Amino acid sequence: MNILFIQTGGSIDKDYPKVTKGYAFEITKPAVARIANRAYAGFSYDIIELLKKDSQDITDSDRRLIYKTCEDAQQSKIIITHGTDTMIETAKVLSAITNKTIVLTGSIVPEKFRGSDADFNVGSAVGALSVLPNGTYIAMHGRVVPYSKAVRELSSGQFTFR
Amino acid sequence: MNILFIQTGGSIDKDYPKVTKGYAFEITKPAVARIANRAYAGFSYDIIELLKKDSQDITDSDRRLIYKTCEDAQQSKIIITHGTDTMIETAKVLSAITNKTIVLTGSIVPEKFRGSDADFNVGSAVGALSVLPNGTYIAMHGRVVPYSKAVRELSSGQFTFR
Amino acid sequence: MNILFIQTGGSIDKDYPKVTKGYAFEITKPAVARIANRAYAGFSYDIIELLKKDSQDITDSDRRLIYKTCEDAQQSKIIITHGTDTMIETAKVLSAITNKTIVLTGSIVPEKFRGSDADFNVGSAVGALSVLPNGTYIAMHGRVVPYSKAVRELSSGQFTFR
Amino acid sequence: MNILFIQTGGSIDKDYPKVTKGYAFEITKPAVARIANRAYAGFSYDIIELLKKDSQDITDSDRRLIYKTCEDAQQSKIIITHGTDTMIETAKVLSAITNKTIVLTGSIVPEKFRGSDADFNVGSAVGALSVLPNGTYIAMHGRVVPYSKAVRELSSGQFTFR
Repeated sequence: MNILFIQTGGSIDKDYPKVTKGYAFEITKPAVARIANRAYAGFSYDIIELLKKDSQDITDSDRRLIYKTCEDAQQSKIIITHGTDTMIETAKVLSAITNKTIVLTGSIVPEKFRGSDADFNVGSAVGALSVLPNGTYIAMHGRVVPYSKAVRELSSGQFTFR
Repeated sequence: MNILFIQTGGSIDKDYPKVTKGYAFEITKPAVARIANRAYAGFSYDIIELLKKDSQDITDSDRRLIYKTCEDAQQSKIIITHGTDTMIETAKVLSAITNKTIVLTGSIVPEKFRGSDADFNVGSAVGALSVLPNGTYIAMHGRVVPYSKAVRELSSGQFTFR
Repeated sequence: MNILFIQTGGSIDKDYPKVTKGYAFEITKPAVARIANRAYAGFSYDIIELLKKDSQDITDSDRRLIYKTCEDAQQSKIIITHGTDTMIETAKVLSAITNKTIVLTGSIVPEKFRGSDADFNVGSAVGALSVLPNGTYIAMHGRVVPYSKAVRELSSGQFTFR
Repeated sequence: MNILFIQTGGSIDKDYPKVTKGYAFEITKPAVARIANRAYAGFSYDIIELLKKDSQDITDSDRRLIYKTCEDAQQSKIIITHGTDTMIETAKVLSAITNKTIVLTGSIVPEKFRGSDADFNVGSAVGALSVLPNGTYIAMHGRVVPYSKAVRELSSGQFTFR
């Protein structure tokens, strides 16, 4: 099994700047590399560091870039790490790609934190890739569903499922 | 989605005894409860603490008990945490159950350790449960396969896949 | 041994907001409570949640409040968790208190992160309190020195020692 | 400040063997190297991997070796990581060295575990070294005391202080 991971940013990849002062996070290297390493990964993978944005800042132009990157990829199994705020919007755009299996995931708590949900979520995306038919899916909270069945609750920042 | 977790023991649940002296581990409360908590689980679940054994110590009688517990369960989606040494043997026994989806998982490094693969592995099992047809599967290293396609390498203690 | 911990904020207590969108951290409950719990603390302690500020935002008025809180405390052994940016300025103000032992500490990486230096730093402050004479000290990077011997390097955000 | 760390073994350095089967721990590389790295150490240090034993297995001959290593060391500030079971016995032997500052520490929970007390304890030993006069000390649970003031409680495995 060969997987293409595409980094777009989001909480999963937020880190604390060592030097810069103040309250801001920054998005650094993809968490999926550290997660795959911890997992004794039984699959091969490539990582494209495409964007490093909070998902509120992802524009239509960014989504076209993500779309084109998926479309052009040689791999047919793709996992996109993405902020939760607009994960569903990006999934909707990607759903026009029908000859690949694309799973969007991310995390509530950054991977750099103790007790993050990142390893679990990426695990659920990878595990489902073994069996999913082509299509575009959201993997969050242990659920892996077609994007149209996921709903983001604004009050909690978490997903529910239709 | 409702999942039944069955604890049988194995590395995933090994902990360091606080009082007892010496070099031995002990198997304590199921890691899956802590993992589901970190994951903001979007599914309901029950946990049965059936056995607390290193998988080398699991006997034929234990396997009949695991089998019967799966057979009797009201849930049709079951995840069994299990030591890696004899995970495939147990899966073989359970494969006679054809009306449920049973996934066996575990970890190389105990969940209590920094940098454990437990969250990822349980995530991969849960994620695959969303889509797997009935049958008995092994979820390790990000791969989720019918038990007959997994091979355990004695030298590394890890799995390869046919 | 009885210790008074005073929270003023800083990196050590920065957490990732679960709901609020965007890049900002927030300062939440004091890390020292979690650290003392992990440490099987062999001392009694109280915690005052006095301020929850990045240390760049600590004003002269805040410093007077910290001073008065130390002066009024019944405890003679005090640890102040503080952002690193202005830790030395606050220590200078507190150095007018000569009948107590006051140690300022904090961390480069928040306690909520894997691989934080917070446990080590608070450990060094507590360990030194067992033996320090009265005065005001900085405990960072394993060094515990009178405040006048610590220098903060702007380029790295870390301390050097005269 | 220059510190000599001497590894003798104990819970602090216990790890889970990746390949060997069963319940046994093994003692591997010294935790202090990882701890100093996380701490952005503001001191120089050397590490001697002298013994890798559970402290119940430390013999009189081992204690003579530890003694001689301390005596021969060029450094005058020494931290010995040691199992808690016989830490006090070893400290008693070392107390005959009166021209150095020797601190014994260890941990209840191995450094490899989430939520270990190892970083805190090593921090307390290092912090106290900045100010301690010559002598032999125990640093556990945030207390740093002459060895004769520490008592190990058999029921809890933890220390109390006279």
